Amino acid sequence: MGKEGKGNFQLKTPKGTRDWQGTDVVLREQIFSKITEVFKRHGGVTIDTPVFELKEVLAGKYGEDSKLIYDLADQGGEICSLRYDLTVPFARFLAQNAIQQIKRYAFAKVYRRDQPAMTKGRMREFYQCDFDIAGTYDTMLPDAEILRVIKEVFEDLPGDWKGKYTIKINHRKILDGIFQICGVPEDKIRTISSAVDKLDKSPWEEVRREMTEDKGLDPAVADKIGEYVKYKGGREVVEQLQAIPEVQANASATKGLEEMATLCDYLDIYDVLPALSIDMSLARGLDYYTGVIYEVVTEGSAPSASAKDVAKKEKKQKKNADPDEDRSNDPTIGVGSVAAGGRYDGLVGMFSGKPIPCVGISFGVDRIFSITKNRLGTESAIRPNEVDAFVMAFGGGKDFTGMLRERMQVAKELWDAGIKAEYLWKQKPKLQNQFKAAENGKVPWAVILGEDELKAGKVKIKEMGLLEDHPDKNGVEVEKVNLVQELKSRLEGKKTELVDRSVDA
Amino acid sequence: MGKEGKGNFQLKTPKGTRDWQGTDVVLREQIFSKITEVFKRHGGVTIDTPVFELKEVLAGKYGEDSKLIYDLADQGGEICSLRYDLTVPFARFLAQNAIQQIKRYAFAKVYRRDQPAMTKGRMREFYQCDFDIAGTYDTMLPDAEILRVIKEVFEDLPGDWKGKYTIKINHRKILDGIFQICGVPEDKIRTISSAVDKLDKSPWEEVRREMTEDKGLDPAVADKIGEYVKYKGGREVVEQLQAIPEVQANASATKGLEEMATLCDYLDIYDVLPALSIDMSLARGLDYYTGVIYEVVTEGSAPSASAKDVAKKEKKQKKNADPDEDRSNDPTIGVGSVAAGGRYDGLVGMFSGKPIPCVGISFGVDRIFSITKNRLGTESAIRPNEVDAFVMAFGGGKDFTGMLRERMQVAKELWDAGIKAEYLWKQKPKLQNQFKAAENGKVPWAVILGEDELKAGKVKIKEMGLLEDHPDKNGVEVEKVNLVQELKSRLEGKKTELVDRSVDA
Repeated sequence: MGKEGKGNFQLKTPKGTRDWQGTDVVLREQIFSKITEVFKRHGGVTIDTPVFELKEVLAGKYGEDSKLIYDLADQGGEICSLRYDLTVPFARFLAQNAIQQIKRYAFAKVYRRDQPAMTKGRMREFYQCDFDIAGTYDTMLPDAEILRVIKEVFEDLPGDWKGKYTIKINHRKILDGIFQICGVPEDKIRTISSAVDKLDKSPWEEVRREMTEDKGLDPAVADKIGEYVKYKGGREVVEQLQAIPEVQANASATKGLEEMATLCDYLDIYDVLPALSIDMSLARGLDYYTGVIYEVVTEGSAPSASAKDVAKKEKKQKKNADPDEDRSNDPTIGVGSVAAGGRYDGLVGMFSGKPIPCVGISFGVDRIFSITKNRLGTESAIRPNEVDAFVMAFGGGKDFTGMLRERMQVAKELWDAGIKAEYLWKQKPKLQNQFKAAENGKVPWAVILGEDELKAGKVKIKEMGLLEDHPDKNGVEVEKVNLVQELKSRLEGKKTELVDRSVDA
Repeated sequence: MGKEGKGNFQLKTPKGTRDWQGTDVVLREQIFSKITEVFKRHGGVTIDTPVFELKEVLAGKYGEDSKLIYDLADQGGEICSLRYDLTVPFARFLAQNAIQQIKRYAFAKVYRRDQPAMTKGRMREFYQCDFDIAGTYDTMLPDAEILRVIKEVFEDLPGDWKGKYTIKINHRKILDGIFQICGVPEDKIRTISSAVDKLDKSPWEEVRREMTEDKGLDPAVADKIGEYVKYKGGREVVEQLQAIPEVQANASATKGLEEMATLCDYLDIYDVLPALSIDMSLARGLDYYTGVIYEVVTEGSAPSASAKDVAKKEKKQKKNADPDEDRSNDPTIGVGSVAAGGRYDGLVGMFSGKPIPCVGISFGVDRIFSITKNRLGTESAIRPNEVDAFVMAFGGGKDFTGMLRERMQVAKELWDAGIKAEYLWKQKPKLQNQFKAAENGKVPWAVILGEDELKAGKVKIKEMGLLEDHPDKNGVEVEKVNLVQELKSRLEGKKTELVDRSVDA
């Protein structure tokens, strides 16, 4: 065994990466599991693709962001790159296996060789959590289901998101129609669209300047766009736009508005409309969207101390940031947004030549994690592990054996019954050290063995953390033969409370 | 959006990697979840480290296998490599955070630029699943707990492993003592040890030839080793060795045997002894083990058609293989073994200079998956998704509307109640297509809406897959207001059966 690895360098994770540990990883798993539950409720299945792909698979999919792709070293053989998102590997998978329809979800890490900004949560390795529906179905039905999934996720998440999130939505066809109506030249539509997309963080004057000065748009055209992007609100926005003669005359806008009206009908049944904001200033960065586009924001949500802090912090970060730097980790997720997606009917066809319509949503779970953690406030409610019972020995005097075998025997019985149990790996532990270990682990129950009690066939069960004046403070004696049953019934009784504590505290 | 990505190359995953999909991923998740349950039962917490580490972290840890490490391209900045296993990143994590004690588990992919051999399950990207205990405790207590964890994992796994696995165990100190007794020169101990390690796949004559001809060992010394490596069996092996005078005179062997005797006492309490085989021919490849070493094998297990097939297949592979190629994906896991590990007290000290004693086990989950899949036989019992109910509309004649809104409304009610539900995303679906979709998904219940029934406030619940002559074959009519409750009670009733089917089928 060489000594090359020893002490000659700073012990750390690579730049832009982190270890997940302690209660952070427990909370993150709670979030993952809540989201997975929603995905499964809608028939989702998971697909696990390799962490790296052939470089050619990623080529030509990310525009100028391609420079952020991590390559593997050329050690002979194929040239590969780490995945940049979960959407392109999913499209590759569909094309390769000629899959016609699927509802797939995935939780996985993606990689971007970006300048990390930990305070903004921008990392080089981070999680994405995607749900996508591929296949040809009647119009707007899978789209409505994705939006229903978004609603369920944010209503089920720990950290009280209910009523504190807004789903901003627009439609590429409406947007394209508006640009045509305003007189944007065909070849400028994409670049003007990306200028409009900045309206959530820049004032109109700045966006107008970019359009006219940087991008050479006729100021009269820019001003006309300025009128349209003001439209936002509930489903009445669809009718307002449909009432405008020049909109009625535009085929793309008409088609987009028809689809949006159908979608609103469906979302009414699904009870999603109250969270929806149709917003003509939402344009989304990525090129590949072809239908509805949406983004979930939580800024300016109902005032609670912690939510305000988050909002304040995010606002401050925006103010100080270099505009080029001021974007989220994920181009599919706008600043301040916690989820984003849309319909992309052309991506799979880039691989196979046979397009398969897709619509999906990507949750920014790292950002959702930070906001949730902030909202939950103190970490005290999150247990570091799930141990149910700590087995202890109590004895006085010099003759105390430590009762190691007895503790092992009891632990074994608990494990046999599926109860999560620990004991101190010491021959003769002090009682206070055993209690300390149980307290550190926030273990809810202690099983206490005493030599005299054991001879009489008894053990004590003690609920941890009871107040001084509680009648059961010193534990309750039970028959040893009934221990498993006694403990199980107590664990069942506490289950709801424990879940509530960890989820809603 | 460029067209560079289109059709100019074969659509595939990189060499040695695969997509996990369909029932494979469902079965794999069942296996992961069973193993996680055991880890949590013993107080395990998970740590999630980055997929790549600074290259220096991995340097000097893997001997000549270092050539199999995947490097990231040098794109400026730090030089990084994909992790090769989960043990070295765990040791880095402990040293970096000065953690004194932890029980950590991890499920994660590791990377080896090896020649892939899919038929043998040797991949370049594969899962490891590790449980490790770090910290200073009284002797053999964490070691015993790891072995108890192994027992629980194999008794809880789907695919009927109970009684079909053996935990082979040895102790580095006993082995070192035997080599000293036999007269192996100090500088040859490691290389002779690795020759002994081949005894599970090569006959003694071949191993003896390697020791004497290739490695220059005195033939008399080799023959003496040959006598010792024959010792295998239950805890009587400890006493047999302890009775040999030259063993009694050797400090290292004496110490190792004392520890093994203590361990056997503990494993007796833990009911692990029946699965244990103390085996002097077990040596293990990796250098860093310092105490007990163990390997779990399932070859030659109780005869069942599929188990025999697996054994036969593995035997055949061994025969035909190039000796250099004939090793498992994972050097920590021997040929035919499904889990392996041991005590390594020196690894963390390589990073921090402060040793932290560790003992652990790594489960070869990809191999466990293959054997389990083989044993379960047909995949028919594994459902591709978890949908509880498929909502359908039934109607005849030209006036049939398809009842889309009604189906959406019912699906929404089910989702609100946490019931997993789907319906066909079509305005006017044929009844047979709705049944087909439910059958393809192996959905257990159909909720059938009819226009007349709905007017009367009724819906039908039908259990899928009932035989022609079953009285409920055409479904049971219930009040629509009671639908959620009726369905929930049926799902509760079926729960056990579904679990049993998926686990033990």
